[in-house]
Amino acid sequence: MFSKSTVKYIQSLQHKKFRDAHRAFIAEGPKVVAELIRSERFPCTAVYATDAWVNDAADVLKEKLSEKLIIIKDFELEKISALTTPNQVLAVFSQLHDIPLPSVKDQFSLALDDIRDPGNLGTIIRIADWFGIRNIFCSAHTADIYNPKVVQSTMASLARVDVFYVDLLTLLPSLDVTKYAATLEGKPVEGFKAMEEGMLIIGNESRGIDPDIIKLADAEVSISRAGMAESLNAAVATGVLVYAMKRSAT
Amino acid sequence: MFSKSTVKYIQSLQHKKFRDAHRAFIAEGPKVVAELIRSERFPCTAVYATDAWVNDAADVLKEKLSEKLIIIKDFELEKISALTTPNQVLAVFSQLHDIPLPSVKDQFSLALDDIRDPGNLGTIIRIADWFGIRNIFCSAHTADIYNPKVVQSTMASLARVDVFYVDLLTLLPSLDVTKYAATLEGKPVEGFKAMEEGMLIIGNESRGIDPDIIKLADAEVSISRAGMAESLNAAVATGVLVYAMKRSAT
Repeated sequence: MFSKSTVKYIQSLQHKKFRDAHRAFIAEGPKVVAELIRSERFPCTAVYATDAWVNDAADVLKEKLSEKLIIIKDFELEKISALTTPNQVLAVFSQLHDIPLPSVKDQFSLALDDIRDPGNLGTIIRIADWFGIRNIFCSAHTADIYNPKVVQSTMASLARVDVFYVDLLTLLPSLDVTKYAATLEGKPVEGFKAMEEGMLIIGNESRGIDPDIIKLADAEVSISRAGMAESLNAAVATGVLVYAMKRSAT
Repeated sequence: MFSKSTVKYIQSLQHKKFRDAHRAFIAEGPKVVAELIRSERFPCTAVYATDAWVNDAADVLKEKLSEKLIIIKDFELEKISALTTPNQVLAVFSQLHDIPLPSVKDQFSLALDDIRDPGNLGTIIRIADWFGIRNIFCSAHTADIYNPKVVQSTMASLARVDVFYVDLLTLLPSLDVTKYAATLEGKPVEGFKAMEEGMLIIGNESRGIDPDIIKLADAEVSISRAGMAESLNAAVATGVLVYAMKRSAT
């Protein structure tokens, strides 16, 4: 049940290459694991839990797991955990693939051009979930949503937001919605009317959005600056812009 | 110049205990180091740089440093760096202490109750700098602004924002401004008038604001939710609320 090869397999899922090969990923901690299992979005293949979790977890959750639940010791959890401070439980899930591309009409969606930091991507997925955004389109070089750091920082919002890896240069022209590129030179967001439909494009943490992608946008949008900072963190900028653009539409 | 004891000293500055003892901190990378040196806010005591940095850095910067500049090899930088990917230069600065508490009248300021994540604190300092907020008041258990992760994530905004560690329970009642506690149950921020003056209180990442501190606030404020996420990341919530509360005041 908890052999050396299991340890090796779970550890390997910290690397994209092996996650891709196995089409699997890990999630950790009572909150994230319970929410992902309850959502039934990603098939759960195994749950490695310490006694502390087994004592606390709801019976309905444990019933759902039945033979997938493996009780382990704290030192064993430490071996397989990707966290600095392992937290009671680690679960292995199957990835979701081949979801057909959705329509973006009558809704507000996001496009991410090379968001590289897993924490930023996870936080942006959580922002989408908070503001009721259902779809995020990412360039191929955006961080992997199944990266453990992304999974943890989404706080289980991964269960409710669809993320697609696409070629933005090809996809964007085909979408019949107004596209807004977040740039430092854009028109202040206060000047835009609140909108129910639209797509906000957010760029890479240091380079911003690819100029060829900016050309595909209908407008550039920015957050007015009163101070001296050169830029805002990409996830914070996303939060502010989504709030401001959807403000009366929530 | 680059002895074993130097390496040990610089490594020790990754820990609060030694930063406090030496009243020093480190900053890394061409951008952050250059901005902190230029600002002249924190006395610079030494700059350890590779040839790559020395070739690229502006002459005026190098002149300013004169005998404080020590050329080192890449493998030496790796030894002293706190970054996963060391980046050309590491500088040691003296901390600033004993700045008298400022007045908060006629301005918008922040109070942080136990923000523990260094990345969140750094990002919040950068948000303050973007929106022209000059002062942040932190509870004693908030992360240390001189933590290398905080310094890096501020992107040098540390040079322009004053951060004070205080007892919020004692300080807040003495401040003659309207205080707003960010809570999940607060009044939607859209309902507040844009303000030039006020203090926004942000709470701990998992527990929120201490109930005794909430009692000291004049109002509770929240960000309307359209989706299902339980909460927003603390830095993102700060960005959205500051934008919304200061919106026409920027």
